[in-house]
Amino acid sequence: MSLLVVGSVAFDALESPYGKVERTIGGAATYFAVSASFFTHVNLVAIVGDDFSKADARIFHGRAINIDGLERAAGKSFFWAGKYSQNLNERVTLLTELNVFADFKPKLPDHYRKSKYVFLANIAPELQRDVLQQVKGAPKLVAMDTMNYWISGSNAELRETLKHVDILMINDTETRELSSEHNLLRAAKHIFKMGPSALVIKRGEYGAMLVDKHGVFCVPAFPLEEPHDPTGAGDCFAGGFMGYLANAGSQSDAALRRAMVYGSVLGSFAVEEFGLDRLRRLKKAEIHARARHFLKLTQFAL
Amino acid sequence: MSLLVVGSVAFDALESPYGKVERTIGGAATYFAVSASFFTHVNLVAIVGDDFSKADARIFHGRAINIDGLERAAGKSFFWAGKYSQNLNERVTLLTELNVFADFKPKLPDHYRKSKYVFLANIAPELQRDVLQQVKGAPKLVAMDTMNYWISGSNAELRETLKHVDILMINDTETRELSSEHNLLRAAKHIFKMGPSALVIKRGEYGAMLVDKHGVFCVPAFPLEEPHDPTGAGDCFAGGFMGYLANAGSQSDAALRRAMVYGSVLGSFAVEEFGLDRLRRLKKAEIHARARHFLKLTQFAL
Repeated sequence: MSLLVVGSVAFDALESPYGKVERTIGGAATYFAVSASFFTHVNLVAIVGDDFSKADARIFHGRAINIDGLERAAGKSFFWAGKYSQNLNERVTLLTELNVFADFKPKLPDHYRKSKYVFLANIAPELQRDVLQQVKGAPKLVAMDTMNYWISGSNAELRETLKHVDILMINDTETRELSSEHNLLRAAKHIFKMGPSALVIKRGEYGAMLVDKHGVFCVPAFPLEEPHDPTGAGDCFAGGFMGYLANAGSQSDAALRRAMVYGSVLGSFAVEEFGLDRLRRLKKAEIHARARHFLKLTQFAL
Repeated sequence: MSLLVVGSVAFDALESPYGKVERTIGGAATYFAVSASFFTHVNLVAIVGDDFSKADARIFHGRAINIDGLERAAGKSFFWAGKYSQNLNERVTLLTELNVFADFKPKLPDHYRKSKYVFLANIAPELQRDVLQQVKGAPKLVAMDTMNYWISGSNAELRETLKHVDILMINDTETRELSSEHNLLRAAKHIFKMGPSALVIKRGEYGAMLVDKHGVFCVPAFPLEEPHDPTGAGDCFAGGFMGYLANAGSQSDAALRRAMVYGSVLGSFAVEEFGLDRLRRLKKAEIHARARHFLKLTQFAL
């Protein structure tokens, strides 16, 4: 089933101990869409400037990604520059230029409005809600991401959006900030009162945790000897997770667990190389092979 | 099969946001022995002062713990005082008094010398080696713990001891310090060159990771809403891990995975209450029930 994503399509400048790129395509919606398109058809809503060339758009070509909702505006595309520490576990934002994104008013093409699966990537909560209101009929599943900037700066707006969301996918710091609870189980209970019925906590090198009515499910991060660039790992996780669910058409406990694994698989590939380099040449067979590797990483019998 | 442990038996003063105890029995060897005794017979080697009463020794009674190797010396027992932060994720050592432990020369009773499983808890590496040399014949499995104090202060001694050890069980910070490698897979490869063929990395609230010739196995920490006191969790993990293996008599990949789970189970019970309070009244049925809960926490099918 079709999966709608709204978020940023951007240019990134990235620096890590493994190298440096001056300008590569990034943005949460880009990472999400490319990742999810390995599983299902994706409808992308975003905005780019006139610096976004036909060559740049090739990242979406030959994939199950519809870009009718990719608006082109006069001006420059969203630009982000960041630098990672020696061990990749800290990052400094060097520059954030919203550019055309500053006046973004997402508009869903008619054929997007029946999307049954919706992912609201990390943008202003009022924009997230606006997109949701343009979807016709009740979507089967709405998930969203957010960040500390909105948690502290637009808390009331964020709370309003959360009322309409099934799954919140954030990291552990954000979980603690949103709930004012350090303990993640207690934090989840707080967040369930805000609307979502499930919480996916992304924990970077420690993996991810799903808390919902079925209980808790944990999946480790795939151990890599040389991760190169963590940019977009969380969005690729979300893409694998939602892509799997949209394709499966099920939200059973078993399906959600598999979605967590496929999310982890896509996140693990994303960090192997700079930007979208690894995902550009990723094959479905590699995804399934790594999912089986996750079995080896976690399974035991009593 | 019999499992030998050498380490500290101590008194602890503990303070966490959940309460305070002025004097409770602690020490790595105590936590380890009580934990392991749910699975196998334990031979304990340690030293206490004349302040260690018959009532104190009751912690070992009615369990499969032999204390013929618990030496009594004139003076006071090892004493440690620590205080945990609001979220239990940081701790400050307020006081460490070695007391009788300062002149500890471990002596194995004759009937201990045939122990096939050996755990060298966190003490000076030369004492660990001394104990190992008193074991007759080749033990089936030798595991050890250590800490940053020995890694930085007695590195040569520690390296010498490591040559005779099969499994090193330390936390992630210690892993990085010992190997001078941030990445845990690369760190493991470094450590394998020092002697051990397996590394168990304890990651606190993130669980534990086994790296050996079979690859990597990860187990999460059991999610608890209200952990009270992390003291001894790592030693209880080690006790469950080694106790399970000694009882199983196998070091197959499947057995090692189960050992990781039973280690996590014992560690999770340990933190539920102060000191050894939870383990004192723990039942085997509870251990097995929680092990099954770990299945629910981690298992998925593709």
